[in-house]
Amino acid sequence: MVPSELANALAEAGQRMDRHGWVPGSAGNLSARIDDTTIAITRSGVHKGRLTAADIMAVNYDGSAVTPGTKPSAETLLHCQLYRLFPPIGAVLHGHSVAATVLSMQGAITFSNYEILKAFGFSTHELDVILPVYENDQDIARLAAYIEPLITRDPPIGYAIAGHGVYAWGTSVEHAFWRLEALEFLLQCELERRRSK
Amino acid sequence: MVPSELANALAEAGQRMDRHGWVPGSAGNLSARIDDTTIAITRSGVHKGRLTAADIMAVNYDGSAVTPGTKPSAETLLHCQLYRLFPPIGAVLHGHSVAATVLSMQGAITFSNYEILKAFGFSTHELDVILPVYENDQDIARLAAYIEPLITRDPPIGYAIAGHGVYAWGTSVEHAFWRLEALEFLLQCELERRRSK
Amino acid sequence: MVPSELANALAEAGQRMDRHGWVPGSAGNLSARIDDTTIAITRSGVHKGRLTAADIMAVNYDGSAVTPGTKPSAETLLHCQLYRLFPPIGAVLHGHSVAATVLSMQGAITFSNYEILKAFGFSTHELDVILPVYENDQDIARLAAYIEPLITRDPPIGYAIAGHGVYAWGTSVEHAFWRLEALEFLLQCELERRRSK
Amino acid sequence: MVPSELANALAEAGQRMDRHGWVPGSAGNLSARIDDTTIAITRSGVHKGRLTAADIMAVNYDGSAVTPGTKPSAETLLHCQLYRLFPPIGAVLHGHSVAATVLSMQGAITFSNYEILKAFGFSTHELDVILPVYENDQDIARLAAYIEPLITRDPPIGYAIAGHGVYAWGTSVEHAFWRLEALEFLLQCELERRRSK
Repeated sequence: MVPSELANALAEAGQRMDRHGWVPGSAGNLSARIDDTTIAITRSGVHKGRLTAADIMAVNYDGSAVTPGTKPSAETLLHCQLYRLFPPIGAVLHGHSVAATVLSMQGAITFSNYEILKAFGFSTHELDVILPVYENDQDIARLAAYIEPLITRDPPIGYAIAGHGVYAWGTSVEHAFWRLEALEFLLQCELERRRSK
Repeated sequence: MVPSELANALAEAGQRMDRHGWVPGSAGNLSARIDDTTIAITRSGVHKGRLTAADIMAVNYDGSAVTPGTKPSAETLLHCQLYRLFPPIGAVLHGHSVAATVLSMQGAITFSNYEILKAFGFSTHELDVILPVYENDQDIARLAAYIEPLITRDPPIGYAIAGHGVYAWGTSVEHAFWRLEALEFLLQCELERRRSK
Repeated sequence: MVPSELANALAEAGQRMDRHGWVPGSAGNLSARIDDTTIAITRSGVHKGRLTAADIMAVNYDGSAVTPGTKPSAETLLHCQLYRLFPPIGAVLHGHSVAATVLSMQGAITFSNYEILKAFGFSTHELDVILPVYENDQDIARLAAYIEPLITRDPPIGYAIAGHGVYAWGTSVEHAFWRLEALEFLLQCELERRRSK
Repeated sequence: MVPSELANALAEAGQRMDRHGWVPGSAGNLSARIDDTTIAITRSGVHKGRLTAADIMAVNYDGSAVTPGTKPSAETLLHCQLYRLFPPIGAVLHGHSVAATVLSMQGAITFSNYEILKAFGFSTHELDVILPVYENDQDIARLAAYIEPLITRDPPIGYAIAGHGVYAWGTSVEHAFWRLEALEFLLQCELERRRSK
C-alpha cells in the first residue's frame, strides 16, 4: 500500500530525528502524501529511532486506516489537515525537542534577522517571522478545527503546540527534514539568546 | 541462566543510555525480571556503553547472586524491591544524567502540563506530576527500607536519588527505556526553564 | 574536473560538520583550492551531512561554474576571495552553529587566554584574539567588497557574519576542519562564560 | 616498540574522547605506561578522533622519543611526571572540554555530595573534593616543576590547567577513561549549577 521508497524515507527521517533527540520515548510522528486519496504515516507506539518501513501504514484523508486493524499515530488528523489545505506539501514531520517544548510554554516565538530563515523560501534575512503557538488539546479533531482558519489565512513556516513540540513540512521527506532542522536550529538559538540576556 | 534475549536487550539499552551520556564511568545499572524467583542484572564495574550479554548475571529476589562468585551492581536491592512490590514491572533502568543529578540536589521536582507526561499512561497533559527525590544513602538496605512505604502508598512515575540519578521502569526493557527517555526529557526541560527564568 | 581525493575530503568534512550540528537544513558550504585557476566547492541545495563526491563541482576564481549547468553555493565569491588574497589557504569551511549565530548577533567577539588559541599558530595563550563580525548582506559581491580591505589589512583567524555563521580556513581540508573545530570550541566557551556571569 | 594492545586501546580512547567533544582540532594527548623505562604517547599534531595505532609512539621517562624523528605531544613531560610519581598509574588522558575550559578560568572547583565521586575510590558521597586548577604555562618543564610538590603532598583525583583542560588517570586506559568521564560529568554538573543559581 505504501510505496517502499516513501516508507524507507520516513523510517530514515525518524532515525535522524532520534539522533537529534527530538523523539523521546515513542513521541513524534512522520507522514508523506502517497496520492490524492491516501497518506503514509507512522503507526502508533513505535520508537522513531527504531523505525522501519514495516512501521509505516496508509490512512485515508479522514485519518482512518486503509487496512483496518493497525492504529495510526494519535495526531494523524493534524497531518491530514496539512495535506488537504496545502497541495505542495509532500511530507509532515512532528517532533518534541527540549527547545520547542520549553519555548512553546512561554508564548509566541519571533525569529528576527537569522540567515537560516532563507531555508523557508524568504529571499532576505532582514525580517521577523512568527512561529505560531497553539494551546495543546487532547481532542485532536477540536484542535484541528481551531487551527484550520489560522493557518489558512496566514500560512506559517511551521507551528508549535504548547508544551508539546513542532510541526514542520516540505515538498518531500528530505525537504521537510531540512525545514524541521532549520526550525529546531532557530528555536535553539532563541533559547540561547533568552538565557544570555 | 539469563535468557539471551533478555541479556541482549539489557546490553543494547546500556549502549543507548551511554549514547545519551547517562552512564559516565561505570555508573548506572540495568535489570529485567526473569521469573518469580530470579532477576537479570548488570554485574558490578562495567562501562554500560560496552555492555555485552556476558555482563548480565542472575540474582535472587533478595539480591544474592544465583551463581556465587560474580558481584551484582551495588544497588541491586533497589531493583529487587521494585519487582517485588509491582508485578507489572518487567525492567528497571538506573542512570546518572547531568540534569537528574543537578535538579535532584535542588529538592522536589514537579512537571506541569507537558504532553510527554502521556508516556507514563496519563490521558491528559493538564496535570502536575511529582518526581520524588530521596536522600542518597550508601547503605542500600536502609535506603530501600526508607523508600518502601513511600512508593507503596503512592506509586510514582519513577524516582530520583539526590545528587545521584533516576530510577525508571516499564513492562519490558524497551518500555522502560521509553519511560527513562521521557523522564530525562522532562528533566532537561525543567533545567532549561529554571535557567531562562 | 575535481580530483577525487579533494572531493572525498570535502564530502567527509561535511559529514563531520553535520555530526556537530553546524549545517542545519542545506546550510553551510565547503571548498578547496584545486590549482591557480579553479576551486572545488559544494553545489547549491545539498544537505552537508549527506554530501558525496558527486556534490562537489569546479568553479573559476570569479565564482562561475567551470561546467555550465550546475549551480555553486550562493556564497562562492567569499570562498574565491580568500583563495585569491591568501596563497597558503588550501580549504575554506563555512557553517552555521548555534553559538556562532547567537554570539555574532551580539557584536564583536574577543577570545582571551585560551590554550586552544595555539591552534591558530600563536605560540602563547596569553593574548586577546578578536573574531571580526561583519553585517550580513544577501548581495555577496557587495559583502565581499566590504570585507576585502578589512581582512587584507589585518588577516583574522576566521570571521563571522552576523546571525549567519563563521568562515574558517586552513592549508588543507583537514587543517581547515581543525581550525573550524577550534573556533567553534572558543565560541561555545564564550557562550558559556556569558551565561554564567 | 609500543605493544599493539596498548596502542589500540589509546587510539580507541581518543575516538571516544572525540565523540564527547573533548579534543577539538588536534587538542588533547593520551598515554599509557609500557614498562619502567618507556611510555606510549600520542605523537604531536594528530586529530584524536582519527587516532590509529600508528600515531602512538614510545618515549623515555624524560620525555625524549625512543626512536628519534617523531615528535611526541607538547605536554609529554606532564604525563611522564605522573608515571614517575605514582606507580599505580597505568594511563593518563588529557582533554579540552568546554566545561573544563570555562570553569578552570573561574578559579578552584569543589565537588560536593555527588554519588559519582565514588568513581574515584571514595566510599561515600558525603564529602567535598577539590579539583586543583594550575595556571597555564607554555614552558612545560617549568609547569611540571611547579605542579610536582603540590600533587605529591596531596594527590588529587585529577587536575585542571586554567583555560586549557584536565588531566585524568587510572590503572589502565579503560580505567583512566572512566575517571575522565566521571570528572567531565562533575564539571558539567557544576557548570549547570552555576547557571541556574
